[in-house]
Parts: sequence; structure tokens; C-alpha cells
Amino acid sequence: MGTNMIRSAVTVSLVPEARGGPFVYWDDLAGAARKAAGLGYDAIEIFPSGPESIEVGELQKLLSDLNLKVAAVGTGAGWVKHKLNLCLPEDEQRGRARAFIRSIIDVAGQFGAPTIIGSMQGRWDGASREVATAHLVGALNELGEHAKQYGVPLIYEPLNRYETNHCNTLAQGVALLERLSTKNVTLLADLFHENIEEVDTAAGLRAAGKHVGHLHFVDSNRRPAGCGHIDYRPIVAALKDIGYSGYASAEALPYPDSDAAAKTTIEAYRKHFGNH
Amino acid sequence: MGTNMIRSAVTVSLVPEARGGPFVYWDDLAGAARKAAGLGYDAIEIFPSGPESIEVGELQKLLSDLNLKVAAVGTGAGWVKHKLNLCLPEDEQRGRARAFIRSIIDVAGQFGAPTIIGSMQGRWDGASREVATAHLVGALNELGEHAKQYGVPLIYEPLNRYETNHCNTLAQGVALLERLSTKNVTLLADLFHENIEEVDTAAGLRAAGKHVGHLHFVDSNRRPAGCGHIDYRPIVAALKDIGYSGYASAEALPYPDSDAAAKTTIEAYRKHFGNH
Repeated sequence: MGTNMIRSAVTVSLVPEARGGPFVYWDDLAGAARKAAGLGYDAIEIFPSGPESIEVGELQKLLSDLNLKVAAVGTGAGWVKHKLNLCLPEDEQRGRARAFIRSIIDVAGQFGAPTIIGSMQGRWDGASREVATAHLVGALNELGEHAKQYGVPLIYEPLNRYETNHCNTLAQGVALLERLSTKNVTLLADLFHENIEEVDTAAGLRAAGKHVGHLHFVDSNRRPAGCGHIDYRPIVAALKDIGYSGYASAEALPYPDSDAAAKTTIEAYRKHFGNH
Repeated sequence: MGTNMIRSAVTVSLVPEARGGPFVYWDDLAGAARKAAGLGYDAIEIFPSGPESIEVGELQKLLSDLNLKVAAVGTGAGWVKHKLNLCLPEDEQRGRARAFIRSIIDVAGQFGAPTIIGSMQGRWDGASREVATAHLVGALNELGEHAKQYGVPLIYEPLNRYETNHCNTLAQGVALLERLSTKNVTLLADLFHENIEEVDTAAGLRAAGKHVGHLHFVDSNRRPAGCGHIDYRPIVAALKDIGYSGYASAEALPYPDSDAAAKTTIEAYRKHFGNH
């Protein structure tokens, strides 16, 4: 085991409205945890419908039995299910979006897991870019500080141009983080988005350096790693060089099915990240 | 000059509503033609607001003077400007979409140029997939036959998953063409879309073979060729092996500006396709 151990994780979605989305396992959290443990994953990444999707005590016991961690918890249901995001025009809508994310942070925190802001960042449309960016900055400051009590960061994810117009590249993500008053927000590098947006993903990761807090390990077509055309070697080298020691988490389509996607990813993880 | 000469083209958009889109030159058709000729391009690809955007006699004279061809004419204004596409639920809307495309074919034909169906293919949403596909198949048959009188094909473009749910890959495009009664429809391979959708773009081009009728020569981030991470060598080898002898056309963002994008692309064209 190296000093910069990068651990493996696999996603499970509990959000029926997200059907078709890039999640490996679906609906059955306990079943997904057992399968992940059986394949040798270190952790699961959970996309709940809301805080009520996770029975904290029950899941803690199951994960303890399986020796499995929670890599991160996603907040996309706030958008997919409730049509909330952090840049909507009405104060009341933005307040509900922040409350939803706080409620997820409060659950994730009990597992020592960070919370991810992806689609909940919204986009600037009606409001001017400056106004929307100010809303996003304010929310990240508030939510990043809220996460501190659990000893975990808040994770912000740059998305490709079709999913947001805030930050598409890692460099834009770093520039956003530098505007924050809180130091408790890190970046999620999703290799599917990077394939579209980065001139050179490895160089983007090196430049983002210490700000990289989470990795979605997925291929160019959003299928499991190895099913597209991403060359992982320079990416893995860059991650090791910047001292990244978080998860390589399979946020990928369940292609050709959930079980095969989980198996393909753990094999690719062992090939590219494995030193055990 | 080889037997499979692949010629160069650059895009010009005359559609104000498409501002921000992947077109190198904007608004001034005659000015763009002069600049393209000055840089040594073989052709321009035009995105008109409608048939009225192009003064046929005037443009024919200008292009003749400049020794420039029209590589293709796009129909995206039908969607961007008029909100029409070939799979809308109402007969009347679909009829107007086909009429718009026919009117473009009638202008393009006078330049010996094919017409492209990209965003005008629409997507299946309200209607079932079968119904929408039948609408698309019917339209491609009718419009492909309409183009015959000009001795040019109709060009169908698979788009990435965010832009359509009909055909994302070249293989899906070939399968669609095989359902048509007309033989006068070919595929557009856009390297930006392929970077997202193809497992291996060169292999996809080889498999599509004779069906490849047009190429958008652009990089992974939709900037001019050379500004992203696409490796063009295996792609160019595949195009030569399948006997492709159409255009390499710069449908790319005007990055960092129109003139620089046109210059970057023609240099990349000469590097990768040039045997003169």
C-alpha cells in the first residue's frame, strides 16, 4: 500500500426520477452494499432521494459488518426530484435548496462522508451571471462551513457545458474556490466531464493539485472505465504526483448491467490504481 | 494530390439566434468567403437563417471569383429560430419542418452542395420512440429523394446524447440509413460528438465506411482542431482507408476569435490531411 492510497467506490442511486442516469447500482441500498463488499470495493457513494432515504443506524451497522465506508453522498435529487438549485431566482427556492443540501450533509456527516454539489449548482439564465455566481458563492460558503462540524469537506463538481454554465473545467473550479471565504470546499474531477472540457485531463489535475478532493472514475462515454477511449495512465500518474488520496468512485452507467459495470470498474481500478 | 483528396472547409453562420454556437465565421457571408479563400480553404459551409439568407446569383459570382465551393448547407435555423423539427407531435409542425429543409435543399442544390440534418432531427419525448423514428425515417426518405435532382445527397448527423436521442453513434446512424428506402442519405461524422459517443472514433469510421459523407473537423472541446486532445492520426488513416473524399469542415467555436480559429484549422488540415 502506497502513501497515497486511492480507494475504490461504487455508486448507488435511490432516486427513481434519476433512472437512466450514471449510477451503477439502483434502489436497493443494502443489496448494493453487499455486492460492493463482495467485489472488494472500499466504499459506496450514495445518491439518496433525501435524508429520509438513509436509515442511519441500520446502514452504519451494515457497513461496519461489511467493512465498507461511505465515499460521498450526492444531492442531485434536490434538482431531479424537487427542481431546486442554488441559483434559482426566488430567495425562497434558493433557501429550500440550501436546506435540502444541509439535510444531506447532516446524514453524510454521520458516516464521515462529504456531500457533493453537482446539478444543484444550477446555471445562470434569467439572473445575470454576476448575481447567479454570487448566489453560488454564498451557498458554498454557508454549506462548506456547515460541513466542518463533521470533519469533512463539501465537494463541488465542475460539469460539462450541457449540464451547467458555471464551471466546466477544473481551472474554472479552482478560480471559484479561490473566491470563497471558507477553505472547506474541494473539487470533484469527473473524467466523463473532463473528456469533454479539459484540453488535457492530466494537466488539469496537476494544475488543480491540492483542490482535487474526489474522483469519478468513468470512461469517455460514461460507461465503466475501460469501455471508452480514456487513457488512464497519465491521469493516474498525475493523481499520484499531486498526492491525491481520496476515492476513485464509479459514477458510470450500469452498462451492460449493474453487476457487470461494478465488476468492470473494480478490475479497471485494480489495473490502474492497485498496489495491493 | 492523392486519389482520395479530402478538401478543406470552414463554417459561417448567418443565424443571430445561434450566437455562441460552433461556427467559425459569423454574419458576413461575403466577408467570410473572402477570408476563407485568402487562407486557402477549398470551401465554405453555410448556416443560413433560411433560403432568403443567400442571394444565389450574387454568391455564385463571388465564389466563382474566389474559386471557392459550398461544402454543405445547414438547417439548424429551423430549430434555433423557428422551433421546428422533424419529430414534433403535430402533423402541421412536421410539415413546416420538412418544407423548411426542402427550401434549403433547393438553394444548396444550386451550388451543388448537400444539405445537413442535425438538430432538425429532434428527439423522441412525448411520442413513443417508434412513432418518432417513423417520422424521422419518412422525412429522410422524402428529403433524400428531393435532393437527388441536384445530384447531391442529404446528410444526416448523429449528435451526442445531450442534443438528440435518435442516433448518437455512427453505428446507430448506419442502422437508421439501412431502414430508409432512399439510398441518397449519408452520414456526417462530427469529431466533437464522436469524442463523447464513440468507443474508438477511427474504428467507428471504418465500420461506417461508404456511409460517411461529410466530416466536421473539430477538437474534443469543440474548439478548432489542435486545441483539445483528439489524436487525429488514426482518424485520418481510417478516412483514407475507407476512401473518404469529402470535406474536412471546421464546425468549431470561434476560439479565441474567428480569424484565429480559421487559421488554426487550416494549419491543422494541412498537417493532417495535406498532400499538397
